[in-house]
This record gives sequence, structure tokens and C-alpha cells, in this order.
Amino acid sequence: MTKDIKALLSEMTLEEKADLCSGKDFWNLKGIERLGIPSIMVTDGPHGLRKQNLGADHLGLFDSVPATCFPSAAGMASSWDRNLIQKVGVALGEECQAEDVAVLLGPGANIKRSPLCGRNFEYFSEDPYLSSEMAANHIKGVQSQGVGTSLKHFAANNQEHRRMSTDAIVDERTFREIYLASFEGAVKQSQPWTVMCSYNKVNGEFASENNYLLNEILKEEWGFEGFVVSDWGAVNERDVALANGLELEMPASKGIGENKIIEAVHNGTLTEEKLDAAVERILRIIFKAVEEKKENATYDKEAHHQLARETARESMVLLKNEDRILPLKKEGNIAVIGEFAKAPRYQGGGSSHIKPTKLENIVEEIEKTAGELVNVAYAQGYYRDKDAIDEDLIEEAKVVASQADTVILFAGLPDRYESEGYDRVHLHIPENQTRLIEAIAEVNPNIVVVLSNGSPIEMPWLDKIKGLLEGYLGGQALGGAIADILFGDANPSGKLAETFPKQLSDNPSYLFFPGEGDRVEYREGIFVGYRYYDTKNVEPLFPFGYGLSYTTFEYSNLTVSSKEINDTDRLTVTVNVKNTGAVAGKEVVQLYVRDVESSVSRPNKEIKGFEKVELQPGEEKTTSFILDKRSFAYYNTELKDWHVESGEFEILVGKSSKEIVLTEKVQVESTVELPFTVNRNTTVGDLVVNPKVAPLAKELLVKAQEGSPFAAAGEEQGDFSEMMEAMMKYMPLRALSNFSDGNFTEEKLQDMIQQLNDIQKKQVTN
Amino acid sequence: MTKDIKALLSEMTLEEKADLCSGKDFWNLKGIERLGIPSIMVTDGPHGLRKQNLGADHLGLFDSVPATCFPSAAGMASSWDRNLIQKVGVALGEECQAEDVAVLLGPGANIKRSPLCGRNFEYFSEDPYLSSEMAANHIKGVQSQGVGTSLKHFAANNQEHRRMSTDAIVDERTFREIYLASFEGAVKQSQPWTVMCSYNKVNGEFASENNYLLNEILKEEWGFEGFVVSDWGAVNERDVALANGLELEMPASKGIGENKIIEAVHNGTLTEEKLDAAVERILRIIFKAVEEKKENATYDKEAHHQLARETARESMVLLKNEDRILPLKKEGNIAVIGEFAKAPRYQGGGSSHIKPTKLENIVEEIEKTAGELVNVAYAQGYYRDKDAIDEDLIEEAKVVASQADTVILFAGLPDRYESEGYDRVHLHIPENQTRLIEAIAEVNPNIVVVLSNGSPIEMPWLDKIKGLLEGYLGGQALGGAIADILFGDANPSGKLAETFPKQLSDNPSYLFFPGEGDRVEYREGIFVGYRYYDTKNVEPLFPFGYGLSYTTFEYSNLTVSSKEINDTDRLTVTVNVKNTGAVAGKEVVQLYVRDVESSVSRPNKEIKGFEKVELQPGEEKTTSFILDKRSFAYYNTELKDWHVESGEFEILVGKSSKEIVLTEKVQVESTVELPFTVNRNTTVGDLVVNPKVAPLAKELLVKAQEGSPFAAAGEEQGDFSEMMEAMMKYMPLRALSNFSDGNFTEEKLQDMIQQLNDIQKKQVTN
Repeated sequence: MTKDIKALLSEMTLEEKADLCSGKDFWNLKGIERLGIPSIMVTDGPHGLRKQNLGADHLGLFDSVPATCFPSAAGMASSWDRNLIQKVGVALGEECQAEDVAVLLGPGANIKRSPLCGRNFEYFSEDPYLSSEMAANHIKGVQSQGVGTSLKHFAANNQEHRRMSTDAIVDERTFREIYLASFEGAVKQSQPWTVMCSYNKVNGEFASENNYLLNEILKEEWGFEGFVVSDWGAVNERDVALANGLELEMPASKGIGENKIIEAVHNGTLTEEKLDAAVERILRIIFKAVEEKKENATYDKEAHHQLARETARESMVLLKNEDRILPLKKEGNIAVIGEFAKAPRYQGGGSSHIKPTKLENIVEEIEKTAGELVNVAYAQGYYRDKDAIDEDLIEEAKVVASQADTVILFAGLPDRYESEGYDRVHLHIPENQTRLIEAIAEVNPNIVVVLSNGSPIEMPWLDKIKGLLEGYLGGQALGGAIADILFGDANPSGKLAETFPKQLSDNPSYLFFPGEGDRVEYREGIFVGYRYYDTKNVEPLFPFGYGLSYTTFEYSNLTVSSKEINDTDRLTVTVNVKNTGAVAGKEVVQLYVRDVESSVSRPNKEIKGFEKVELQPGEEKTTSFILDKRSFAYYNTELKDWHVESGEFEILVGKSSKEIVLTEKVQVESTVELPFTVNRNTTVGDLVVNPKVAPLAKELLVKAQEGSPFAAAGEEQGDFSEMMEAMMKYMPLRALSNFSDGNFTEEKLQDMIQQLNDIQKKQVTN
Repeated sequence: MTKDIKALLSEMTLEEKADLCSGKDFWNLKGIERLGIPSIMVTDGPHGLRKQNLGADHLGLFDSVPATCFPSAAGMASSWDRNLIQKVGVALGEECQAEDVAVLLGPGANIKRSPLCGRNFEYFSEDPYLSSEMAANHIKGVQSQGVGTSLKHFAANNQEHRRMSTDAIVDERTFREIYLASFEGAVKQSQPWTVMCSYNKVNGEFASENNYLLNEILKEEWGFEGFVVSDWGAVNERDVALANGLELEMPASKGIGENKIIEAVHNGTLTEEKLDAAVERILRIIFKAVEEKKENATYDKEAHHQLARETARESMVLLKNEDRILPLKKEGNIAVIGEFAKAPRYQGGGSSHIKPTKLENIVEEIEKTAGELVNVAYAQGYYRDKDAIDEDLIEEAKVVASQADTVILFAGLPDRYESEGYDRVHLHIPENQTRLIEAIAEVNPNIVVVLSNGSPIEMPWLDKIKGLLEGYLGGQALGGAIADILFGDANPSGKLAETFPKQLSDNPSYLFFPGEGDRVEYREGIFVGYRYYDTKNVEPLFPFGYGLSYTTFEYSNLTVSSKEINDTDRLTVTVNVKNTGAVAGKEVVQLYVRDVESSVSRPNKEIKGFEKVELQPGEEKTTSFILDKRSFAYYNTELKDWHVESGEFEILVGKSSKEIVLTEKVQVESTVELPFTVNRNTTVGDLVVNPKVAPLAKELLVKAQEGSPFAAAGEEQGDFSEMMEAMMKYMPLRALSNFSDGNFTEEKLQDMIQQLNDIQKKQVTN
């Protein structure tokens, strides 16, 4: 059924068109029966489906049908595994088909500007490249099943604090290189059916009314073909939003928005062509959904559960393994301590909160995996729902711990600490957990802490424990995944997709997060995450890209396809990685690029490639990467384009942003010439280093100084031109008059400027 | 001779008026003989007079008449001694009178944004309060002698890099609280005869053409009565500059600027009234200079030299004194190592560079002060004019050091490392000095390093030495001062007026200094110096306010005159300080204020008072401070005024910004109400916390939700209003429509807004 959208459009009344631009209710778009336009359903949830039954509340707050709960994005990104996340996408797509859901409202590609953001668990990374790769593959997976996605929340929605009213002030270069880049890669690679605009303002305009964002960048520059949907309640003025690129308002506007659109068309502030274009985009997706709908679809709950377990295994990050305490032997006495082991935290709060098809009990999974030779004892240790220390629980836990060979201690952030809707104000775990760790350390030195949390925490107790497994929010199969890793049935291969700071105040946004009133300035600019820690030389607790394995890897033979390239060339980089340990494992090979010298401020390094490779003991593989202009470029706001400054670049291959093991150098030559217009405030220094104007400039400068005190002084000092250059480097041309005894008149100045601009034009013509 | 300026003005032709607005030559203003207007001379140098003889070059580069070289501002500020700096001012004024100089071009009150700024040695501090106090007292001293000053460089001239063309982008609050405040205090307290505008642009306009800066802030708000002079060559367009508040262009413009003024008056772009006002300001100062001229003035060179020695003693900061290695005993073998001991660095490079009346030799002064029982041996150690390591010099120094009881090692920054005109790019001392320190440490553990430098350096060798005396640029009598301190004839009492970072990258401006092209953004905002280190919790090498003594001080009995005040009240704070050691000494009692909780981002603490007190052993004194509104206020950009947010403030008394010894709390109540206008994007949360609108807002919000799903959901959940408040805190009023099933129409929204604004007006009327 391929619909003739144009024909359909021509049959629609103005009222019908306006109508189609907002929802029917909380989760359904409107249909138009007389024209055969069906109503399709959209549903929350990047890491699981949150379809609400009809007849439930209309607020999107409460219960939903069961669906597989995969690890949330913070965890999934730590897998650094494009294929895996695509498989998760496929599974999500299948569940959508089975539940008659046309569009899944995710993934979220917002950058983790601060670890405090309450919704970080739903986002991938502090790095736009990694984030966009993860988002793109999530989208590819879902959409391969004939189900749409909604890449969200576009854009600069990096906090929950006052998210519906705050104005994110981001300079253009930072916006392009960090916050937009995370969406750009996903849009260009995987063409999501829809993009969801965020609640906030961006540089003074609501994202929902932001022509620059929604039309110029998203649709015109990036070629986005779908429609933009508002985050639920993000529309300020419906007609203004439509005129600026927002096609669909959600949830239902019940006539309010529709009427504003109709009025605006009537009074001429909105053209019907714009409305038509919006409706066309919406119709195209509606009929795409209809076309790709699979009737009577079902999915394999158990297979999806196993995929959730695999995903959780790949996502968890081993952060500490002193004395090789892990993997644990499958014998002896093990104490499992902490209520999280029995009542796990496995997903985040808010619109992404789903009802899992089942939920593994961690203690049981540990018992199962450990086998019969292990004696597992459990103690609660703390009340998950309270912060207060309960000395009785701690004493009980100490007794249990003192009788064990090893303690597995479950800790992390309870639901109330992080959720959509509000941000954290500190990075602590509850004090009853901190106290528990300290107390257990008094009776048993062999502690492995397993964390459940959506975003980094401070760890003042880190030196009191031997093992640390970052479990993130591991989804419904977290228990099995944890057991697999703890006992070595799986070799941990997750790497941090974000920096863990030693203290909150180390974070780059610390002084300016979450802003004042309804204004948040991104003053740290491009220095987000490891870009900041590496450039400012601030030691993190754990760096971006960090994660341990039960085996070891050796890197060798880093090669580049050429030592000198133009910015339009592609560069192939290869490197060998060998598993030098005793067990199979996976390594995430990370490629960073550093601009050795730059006229603009650039980070110490930026990740531009990664590959996850699986290696048997002794096995060696060659990984290759292709770098292009963008890999070396920064966003030049004058050119309004990505630009590579000619010069030397370092290709850095490493195991994390802090642990670079191999380096190569490449000379990149720019094929683009930056504009250079001489004016009265052009400095002498800038003239004499510009190859196009330098010869003439020197000649004219000498002439300008003839008979002036400079000349006299220069002659006295012996070397006229050198002295002049040194003294005058920062001097604007117009200031020469002050040192010319009246010889360098305004007319002479204007003539000099004219000549210096003319000679450039001549060279262009040649 | 009191001139009738108005009458004089009425006799002047347009050409004469225009003429008077630029210099005659490099150092002299124009006079007009026919009207009896004399030409007066102005001369460089905040810490000494740089009067150039007639017939020298006309560029202001070379030789000058001898004058007393006092410690430069970086050192003087470390004295924290208002009276002392005033005495220096008096001496400078005397020298000006003796040399027939009408205006001394200083002091410089620019804030040390980065330790890299090449001209930091000429500036006082990273803190605006300390800086303005120092500048004010410098000015008071000079002007008490009938000689004018030129407070410079106004404003936001915090780097030398591209200083003539760069545009300093500073947000209004930061500009007011940090960069302007440093000038504001000095202008208001001491009314300098002139203010010198800086080269750079400020937020897009050249300082020389900046109406906001020169007219609105400086003259109208602060009441500055003198004239503004351009930094030498800072005029871009002369007529535009005059129209925007720049009275005098320097140096000579030789007709170019004069003609532009005349033309502008002729073509109406500049009113003659504005020109008259400018000329009047210039004439008033010219005749003030004439009136206060002391004929045949002389000064006592030796007394000024002794004052320079006293000033140097008070300015030097003892930074380390392990094992109480200092003061040295006047017996035994002492090795003096480092060429700086014989060829000292005692002043900075650039326009402030003067020819001293004499210069003490450090080695000789040490010998003199040490007396006959001390055997002093000298080794050069390095070539001052080179960076390269000379192993022969090092070997020789090691031999000398190995035979000594104690080594006094002279190190620091050579002239080429810091100067007006360019910035440093790192904080290292030359590698030959670093190597020397390390080499000496191998043969003798008893090392005292004496530093000569205008701005902080990194000290990777700090743990290899026992004593460290920061000598700054100590002026012509530094030798004696150093000897006095080393042997205990003087007790060090200097305190750092700036933070010494552990590494350059710790500095708050690091990522954004010195900017890109002609644009430097002050992105760290108000977090300059200790405001950053204390708030970001970055451990400095030595904190602001730090400095050791040979005695000990105890603080007690911190009192406040009231525990609760209004923002319009004054608060008296007293504290007792006792010398609990064995020798007389001086302590700088520092008072900081912290806003415990604030809706805007505020520093951890800010200094709001200091007093230097001299105490004999066992003596105790009570120091008192008066705090006023400004002590508690931040600059509110909406009010365009200083504002105190009601709440608790801490009064912190300490020995440095990091070592607070006593704390008191005060409740300050604001008498100013912030404007609150309700609009469609006002959040529910903001309404319900505002006491004026909350009752009505709650009533209207409940009404707005009647029959809506929220109400239904609320009833289901049991507690309607609480749930609504929690969920809707961040929700703008207009978004209520999305959750009202169409009940909350645009008309109802507008009506609600109207009612909420009306009720506030009613309350104002009541």
C-alpha cells in the first residue's frame, strides 16, 4: 500500500490538516476516517517498551504492559558494541510490532554534561561520537523491524532542573562539536522516523520553536526526512512552533493548538504551504508504519531475556581488581551483602520506567552460577528505601562477612536519588551504604562491590575494597550477568562511556550547573568529559574508556596509510591487538586524534574511532579505522563549516583516554583558505605571517615609517626591521599614526588597506 | 591661581579645543600660549618615575632620569599595608614635583586573571577589594603631593597578547564584581586626576570608544571628576572616542585626531558641548597641576632608598620554613648561589622600567647583615641570560654548597620571561635554575630559595628545599631587605595577594586564555583566583593570603555587632589577635564573607576586610572591621544594582583563604524586592514559593485542573495537591493545557496570568 500523499493532502480541509498536527490522546496520533488515515501509537522507552493499556490514566504516569527491560543507555553504551545495540534495537522493534506500537520514543542522544543530570541513565555518553554511534545502531535495529524511533531530546537538554523553561546558552562551536554532533551522526547514519524536540530553550528560542535547529540544521543540513514531535508538553505557541519546524504536538492539544494553527493561516502569519509540508511529513511516517506493520506479530520472551542478560554482561565495567580478587573461585564461603542483591535497582525512574517480563533475583543467580561448592550467605546491610544507618543490620552484616572468604557487597543509587524530572545535587550514595562498606572492611579485606546506578558516584571508600564492578542499571537480567562476571563465566569487557570524577567539583560544568533561574550557560564550552579532564590535567577517579578484563591485551604495529594527507583525503589506520592472557576476552580498541598545535582552543584528544574485538587466548587481530576530514576538524564559526587547520596531528591508540599505548603522526594539509580582510585594526603581526600579503605588507610598512621616530630609533639600534617586527607584532595599522610624527596620515592608512586587500583578489584571480 | 575655566573655554576656537585633546609629543600635553594654558608633563611608572630627557627618542623606549625604584605592585600588594603604600605614593609624588612631572601614569588596577599575563608584576592582585585598596592608597599618597595619577588600564586589560586589538568578552556581573570593582573602589576613595583607558575592546567596543565604560560607569555612576587619557596609541577613531568619553589622546596625534574632531563637529556627528565638556575636564586638571606645583622641589634620595628597603621587607612572603631553617644564625658558612644574587632582577620590563638611583648588591648586603662570624661563599650556578644548563657552573656551585651549613639559592624569572608586551606561555623558571636546585639538593639539604619574579611559577622542586622566600620584584633595595629577613633583622609579614597554582592548568582561565584571534572570553566568570580554587576545591600550591612569620599569632573572641541586620545596616566585626611567639611581628588579619545559600552562583568566600597589625611578643590587639551592604552583595544584572539575598552569611576570619580560624554567622535581610512578573512560561514551582502570589496561585491552579486527568489521578493517588506540586514544580503555566483534556484554554491561561500580576500591584498599593 503506497499512498499518494500529495493526492491525499489535496483532499484535506484546513481543519483536518491542523488537526493532524497534534495527538489524539496521550499516546496516539489522530487519524482521519473519511480519508483512510489511520491513528498510530507511539510509546515511551529507549531500553524497553512502555505501552499503557487503554483505560489507564491519561498522564502517562502509571502501569504498562510487560516488556523486556534491557540495560539502560548508560550501560548499553559501556558495551561499545554497535552490533549488540543493534540486536537490542531489533528486539525492541519486535516487541513494538507485537504490541501494535508504531514508534518507540527513543533513543536519547543528549550528552552527559554533568553527572548530576537525573536522566543520564537514559543517555549514552559524554562523547558525541560514541553517543551517536550507539544511537545510530539502536535506531537501525528498531527500524529494521518496521518500527519507528524518536531520537530525543533535541537539543541541549542536559539537565532536568527547570527543563521546561530553562534557556541553554551554548556557543555555536560547542553546540556543533559536542551537543549537536551526537544527534548528527545518528540522523545521517540511520534516518530515524521522528526526532523529538526538547522542552528547553536553546540560545533564547524554545527548541520547539527553533527554526535554526529544526529546519536549518536538522532538515536542511542533515537531510532528516521524518517529522519532529514535541516532547510531551514542550509546545509554547503552536503556530510559531509549526512555522519553525515542529510538525507534531504531543500529547493531545484538544483544540487549543489546532485553533492557533488555523487562525495563523487565516491571518497570514503561517502559510498553508508550511502546514502542508508538515502534514506531508507526518503522513509519510503514518503510512510507512502502516506499510511495515506486521500483523499478529509476537516475540520470544525468553530469547529477549537472554539478550538482556548478554547485553548486561557486555555493559558492566570492571573498575578495580586488586590482587586479582575476581573472578571468584567456585568454592568456599561467599557473603552477599546489601538489599540491592534481593531488591535490585535495574532501571531508572520516569517515562522510561517499564514493567519487565520477569526479574532475576541476584542472590539466586549467584547461587546458581557459583554451584554446589559455594556456600552463599546473605545479609541485608541497609534499608534500600532509607538513608539512615541501621546499626543492627550492619552488625548482622559484619557477622556474615566475617565468616566469608569473600564479600560481594551490593551498593548504588536508590530510585529516589536519580530519575527523570530532577537532578542530583551531589554524587554520594546513601550514608547507610557508605557506612556498611566501611564496617565490612573492618572484618573482611576481600570485598567486591557491585554498583547499581545510572551515573557516576564519588567513592571515598575505594581503597577499602579490592574489587569493583560498575553494573549501571542492568535491566531485568542483571542478576545472571553479574553472576557470570563474578565467577568468570563471562569476561568483563565494558568500558566507561563517561569519566568518573574524584569529586563532583572536578566536573567541568560544576560552577555553572544547573544555571541561575531560567538560564544555564555552557561556559566550559567544548571541554566536556574527558576533553576537560585530559586538557586541564585533572586526575579522574576512572577515565573515559577505562575498564578491566580477566585477560591482557597487547597492541602493536600501528600504521597509517599515509604520513601526509589533504583534509579531503581518507586515512586508514590499522593496529594489531593480541590476547596475551589465558582466557578469551574482548577489547575495545580506541582511536583518539590530537591536533598538535592549533590557533583555536582544542581538547588534548578526541575519540574518532573504536572497535570491540573478541580474541581467544594467543589470538591476534588487525583492527582498522578510516579517518576523514571530520576526524581532524573543528567547527569554524566564521566559515560556518568544519575546518582542518594545516599541521601535524597525532593518532593515538589506547585502552582509555588516559592510557595511550601507541602513537603515530600525520601531516594534514588544508584545502580551504580562511578569509583574511585587512582593516584599520589588522595587526602588523597578522600581516607579516600571512603568505599572501606579507611581502607587500613589509614593503608598505617600511614606507609608512620613513622619516618617523621608529626609523630613527631603528637605525640607532642597528636593526630596523627586526626591532620593528618585534615591537609591532600586536600593533593595529591605525596606531602607526601615533608613532609616525604625523607622516602616516589617514589617507595613507586607507591606501595601505586598499592595496593589501587588492593584492589578495589578484592572487585569487590568478 | 584659580582659573575661571568656563571663561577660558569661551575664548577658545574650535581648533584650539580640538587641539587640546591630544598630546604635544610623547610625554607632554599641549598648552595654548595666547590663553595662558601651560603644557604639563606626564610620565610612566607606578613604582618609580620614568621621566625621559628631552632629546631622547620620541618613542618612550629608552633611557630616563634616575628615580627611586620601589618594589613593583605585585610585591607592594603583598604587604597588605595601606599606610606603607601611601608612604610610597608620597615619595613618588615628591620625585614628580622635583622632576616637574604633573601626572604619574599609574597605578595599575587590573585583576590578575591569569598568572601568564606579562604585566602582572605591575598589578596588585587577583582580588578586586585588595587591589582597589592598594590602588586607592597609592593614589592618595601621590596626589597628597600635588601630583596627579592615572589609574590604569581601564578596563578588562588582563593580558598582553594582542592587547591592542583583542575583544574581552566579560559578562556584566563578572565585570562589575571583579574587573570593575578593582577600579571602582580606587576611584570612589581617592579620585585620581586621570584614568587611562586600555587598548583592548570590551564586549565589542574599544575601551577608548566605550560610552558605557567611560561615561556611564566611570563618570556618572562613580562620579569620576578628572579626565580619561588613552593608553599610548589606544585611539581607534578620535571623534568616536571623544563622543564616548575619552578626553585626551596620547601620544601626539599630529593633526590626525584633531582634524577628525573638527570635522565631526562640522558635520554634526559630535556636538561642541561634548567637546567643551572634554576640554573643561582637561583644563581643570592642567590648572590643578599648575596650582599645586611646588617650585624648586627636591627629594631625599637616601630616605627614599630606605623606604624602598622597608617596602621590600614588608612585601616579601615567606612561603616555606621547614625545620625553622630561617632566620639564619649569624655564624657559620653560608653559600650564596645563583647569578641573581649579583645581578638581581628587581623590576619588570616595559613602560615601567626605570633607572634606579642606586642598586644594592645582594651578596654584599648579606655579608653586611650577617656580620663577621659568617663566612659567605658565592657561586654563579647559571647564566642569567640563558636557559641552557652549564654543567661547569653547576659543578662549581655544588662544591661551594657542599662546604656550607646553609645554601641561599637565588632563582626566578629573567627579564625575557615576563614583560609588558607579551604573556608567558608556561610557569617554569629556566631549566638551568631548576637543574641547579636539584643538583644542590644532592649535596646539601639546607637550602633556602629566594625568588625574584613578578608572577607565580611552578615549583616541582619545592620538596627538595627547606626555606622559600618570595621576593617578587623587590626594587632597588631588595638586597638589604632580603638580608634583613634571612637573618631575622626583619620578621617577614608579606602575604600572597594571589594564588600560586600547583600547575598552570589549574588556573581558572586556562582553557580560555589568551583567547582565539581577537576574542577572549572570560568564561570562568566571577571565579577568578581563590574564588575558583576554593569553590572548585582545587588545592593550590600556596593559597591567596598565605605567608609565614617568625612568630605565631592566636585569634580569639570574634564578635559581630548584631546577629541580624538589614542589608542597609552596617555590621561591626571585631577579633583579637595575640602574638604568642618570641619576636615582634606583623599579622594580616583577613576577613572573608560567605553566602551560605544563594539562588545565584557565588564563590565559596570573598575577602571583605583586612588589617595589618604589629604586635610585640605577648601583645594582643583588637582589630575591627565595618561591613556594609556591598560586603554581602552580588551584582544583580536584572536590578542593575548590588543586591543582598536574604539569608545566612558566615563571617570568616583567617590567616589565608584556606586557613579560616574563626567563624560567626549573621542573618541579613534584604530591603529590596526583586521584580516578579508572571507570564505563560512562569513555572508552577516559582508561583507557589512566592509569598505574594502563592495563595492565589494555588487556588487558581486547583481550579485550572478541575475535571482534568490530573485531578482524577490525584484523587486516585490520595493526595491531590502534594502530588500536583511535586510533579508540576518545573511546569510552565502554558503546558497545563496539555494535561487538562482541553479544559484549560488559552483564555483561562491569560486570565490566570492577569490575576496573578494584578494581585501583586494591589499589594504594592497597599
